[in-house]
Amino acid sequence: MGCRGRMVTDMVQNKTEQVERWGMFEIALTGRTDGNPFTDCEIRGRFTHPCQEVEVSGFYDGEGVYKVRFMPSFEGEYRYEISGSFSDETAAGSFTVTPPSAGNHGPVRVADTYHFAYEDGTAHYSIGTTCYVWHLQSEELQEQTLETLRESAFNKIRFCVFPKHYDYNHNEPFCYPFEGSRESGWDFTRFNPAYFRHLERRIADLQALGIEADIIMLHPYDRWGFSDMGAENDDRYFKYLIARVAAFRNVWWALANEYDLLKAKTVADWERLAGVICENDPYGRLRSIHNCIPFYDHTRPWITHCSLQRQDLHLSTELTADLRTRYKKPIVWDEICYEGNINWCWGNISGQELVRRFWEAAVRGGYAGHGETYLGHDDVLWWSHGGKLYGDCPARLKFLQKIYAEIPGCGLSPMVKRYWYNFDETCGVSKDESYKLYYFSWFRPSFRDFDFGEEKWEVAVLDTWEMTETSLGVQTGKFRVPLPGKEYIAIRLRKISC
Amino acid sequence: MGCRGRMVTDMVQNKTEQVERWGMFEIALTGRTDGNPFTDCEIRGRFTHPCQEVEVSGFYDGEGVYKVRFMPSFEGEYRYEISGSFSDETAAGSFTVTPPSAGNHGPVRVADTYHFAYEDGTAHYSIGTTCYVWHLQSEELQEQTLETLRESAFNKIRFCVFPKHYDYNHNEPFCYPFEGSRESGWDFTRFNPAYFRHLERRIADLQALGIEADIIMLHPYDRWGFSDMGAENDDRYFKYLIARVAAFRNVWWALANEYDLLKAKTVADWERLAGVICENDPYGRLRSIHNCIPFYDHTRPWITHCSLQRQDLHLSTELTADLRTRYKKPIVWDEICYEGNINWCWGNISGQELVRRFWEAAVRGGYAGHGETYLGHDDVLWWSHGGKLYGDCPARLKFLQKIYAEIPGCGLSPMVKRYWYNFDETCGVSKDESYKLYYFSWFRPSFRDFDFGEEKWEVAVLDTWEMTETSLGVQTGKFRVPLPGKEYIAIRLRKISC
Repeated sequence: MGCRGRMVTDMVQNKTEQVERWGMFEIALTGRTDGNPFTDCEIRGRFTHPCQEVEVSGFYDGEGVYKVRFMPSFEGEYRYEISGSFSDETAAGSFTVTPPSAGNHGPVRVADTYHFAYEDGTAHYSIGTTCYVWHLQSEELQEQTLETLRESAFNKIRFCVFPKHYDYNHNEPFCYPFEGSRESGWDFTRFNPAYFRHLERRIADLQALGIEADIIMLHPYDRWGFSDMGAENDDRYFKYLIARVAAFRNVWWALANEYDLLKAKTVADWERLAGVICENDPYGRLRSIHNCIPFYDHTRPWITHCSLQRQDLHLSTELTADLRTRYKKPIVWDEICYEGNINWCWGNISGQELVRRFWEAAVRGGYAGHGETYLGHDDVLWWSHGGKLYGDCPARLKFLQKIYAEIPGCGLSPMVKRYWYNFDETCGVSKDESYKLYYFSWFRPSFRDFDFGEEKWEVAVLDTWEMTETSLGVQTGKFRVPLPGKEYIAIRLRKISC
Repeated sequence: MGCRGRMVTDMVQNKTEQVERWGMFEIALTGRTDGNPFTDCEIRGRFTHPCQEVEVSGFYDGEGVYKVRFMPSFEGEYRYEISGSFSDETAAGSFTVTPPSAGNHGPVRVADTYHFAYEDGTAHYSIGTTCYVWHLQSEELQEQTLETLRESAFNKIRFCVFPKHYDYNHNEPFCYPFEGSRESGWDFTRFNPAYFRHLERRIADLQALGIEADIIMLHPYDRWGFSDMGAENDDRYFKYLIARVAAFRNVWWALANEYDLLKAKTVADWERLAGVICENDPYGRLRSIHNCIPFYDHTRPWITHCSLQRQDLHLSTELTADLRTRYKKPIVWDEICYEGNINWCWGNISGQELVRRFWEAAVRGGYAGHGETYLGHDDVLWWSHGGKLYGDCPARLKFLQKIYAEIPGCGLSPMVKRYWYNFDETCGVSKDESYKLYYFSWFRPSFRDFDFGEEKWEVAVLDTWEMTETSLGVQTGKFRVPLPGKEYIAIRLRKISC
């Protein structure tokens, strides 16, 4: 058995001895095939750069091939050493990290406590969507989903590793994550590399579109038993998944969807699994855990941001400011009812209402998530299957995206009100206080008066539904902003520097 | 000076020696005119019936005339005796109380803790509106207001005794409640009977339309000084007003509007004034006190029902069930933003949103109030001036009125949910559980499944906005109700008795 040091390049864009910053270096080596390579063998890589020294775990990819993946964070030369029980031999070498290509801003990090930014400092204004098992539909449908995403404002998508069993979700995936079958039982100690290779292909596709992959590692909608494998199997699965996909810079870890519906798991289980992520992910990818009813304790230090589902019949993103105060982390409302007309309570609001919720989040310095559940398209619902979007919301999110992009810094903070006065508006203000965004939600004032003394402000009225922007030029002192007396209006003020 | 015992009949419908039940008996007598009759003299009436013995205070009506008014609660013969320092003589006599005429159901009382019913047992489903000083506008406008009310669903109107000073309210009333003038000062010890006679005329007009007069005794929008007269003058004014109008069966006492904006008054003042009402009103009329920001302590025993203004930017009537639990009294949301487009935050929501809030209240066993503030009609805004209604809400309130009328008993209770399941509906149920009303607010399910075992239920889908009712006949066992996938839909279920 030999160590060939062959680079595998079929899946990712990095070239053999040259990788761009935040790209992915991959080395594939042959090794032992006796016994169970998934459990009996391990492969490790050590990557060294003047600024960084990292050890990562690799994984068995089937057919005698072991792989190690690594995302370099610095430009220049990296040296690596590969070792482990997979082989009696070791491998070593080096590669050069070049500047990132256009559109590669690095992984997303928490910025300014409540916000996100890419590692190069570019603000990331999260506009997420949910397509739980889009990657397990027909190839044609998957391609359509990618095409829809390409045309959209979405820069994050939540989806599951495992197949989904639920209303409108009764088909079988093209293959399974483990060896075995539902009838004969699964061998949770033997992964199916093809299943994960497909997942990785889709993560890479998303990366190419500039979309973060918010990967749901466990979920309760299950007829196969993957939601209740026991601690040992869960841990092994987590390590395997992390070894495979952590090096993709667009990966976020969503520990579970509706964790509270996974009845067999306790808080101790979740904390242990969070530990598995923290120990095995060398990049510190974003980590969250999503509720059905009770929020998880988002003060836990491993949670980087709050991934929330609404808890109130009527309120969702309106509570963003309170939750910022409570958790001191970014507030991401991943489920606030989807646009649609489905029988289920979480998927039947209008596009107008969903857009309103996005804006309520935005002006409070939080982030909302989209989903679509319209019946009547051959039971293909975006929320689970992807495909096409039929709703009114997505176009308006492109308008919101445009507004987000112009905010100085990396996000808004809700302006605290001292009075009941103007109790029909919410104002978000940028960190440098040069940018103010007033949102009126369903309130419809005919005008609003301001008094900015000697300061000069550029004023515009935004119709968040009609997606129009009406400039009122530069104003100073006391001035009145006429408004159309319609719902969903905002006023944008930009301070003119002297 | 003599006691003539002359009956005065110019203002109310009761005849000299015959009064209908819950009508008004009035006796006018001449008396002393020296000194200040308002403060120096008193007149009392004692009314005796086998079931009732009541003593009431009368009042000086100017030009040497003193009056005593009384609302009889029982049919048959009443005897009365009039006495007091107004004259050295007394008067006595009797009158017969006949059955109430059609449309006279008696005064409104609290019923079943959270609801209202007239004294004859007829349910009173409150659909209120606000026209703060409609009775102080031009005669022509007042008549137009009455005409608008006649065509409407409103069965309660909130309005002020005193004139109002506020945006869009800068005119002077045709006369003032006290002698004197703003320039030379007011003599708070001398009332202007003409001012109060006009108020009474309008209370009687409302009574003829079947509309409750929710009389705001004090309010803060004031340039005349009537909101800060001091305790002695306040008490005298309260007693005078009560002596004059308590006998009108449609009077409700609203101690103050936005009590918290009357900065000179303390809780002790409000409690003392509430005591003045309780001691001087022999009929136990409904009593409330309305907030701007903090709710008054509605657990106080003198408060018969909660007259509320929203405290939350987004939620209002959605909180009805919680407040029922907290206060154990009827919940009346008199201010939840008015339909309109005014600059003020409390008056610029759509008709759709206001109608939605009415339904959110209704299915939780509470009551909402209407108001309209549209600019662009010569600064005549219904909220203050009355006149015409231009909004979309009033027509829908007639539909709600029709639905209210069919509820068995006197109101709905919110059905407590044990599960998150169907977290897009709110259900109100009648006391006898034979009537269920599910409201979907902005949620838009395409269908809803029920399972009523062997019971039979008559099913209808209501479009609360389009004001349509679609019968689905009698259903039993498991059945599916198809829904239009639109906002503002309700399902009504009526149990079929075997």
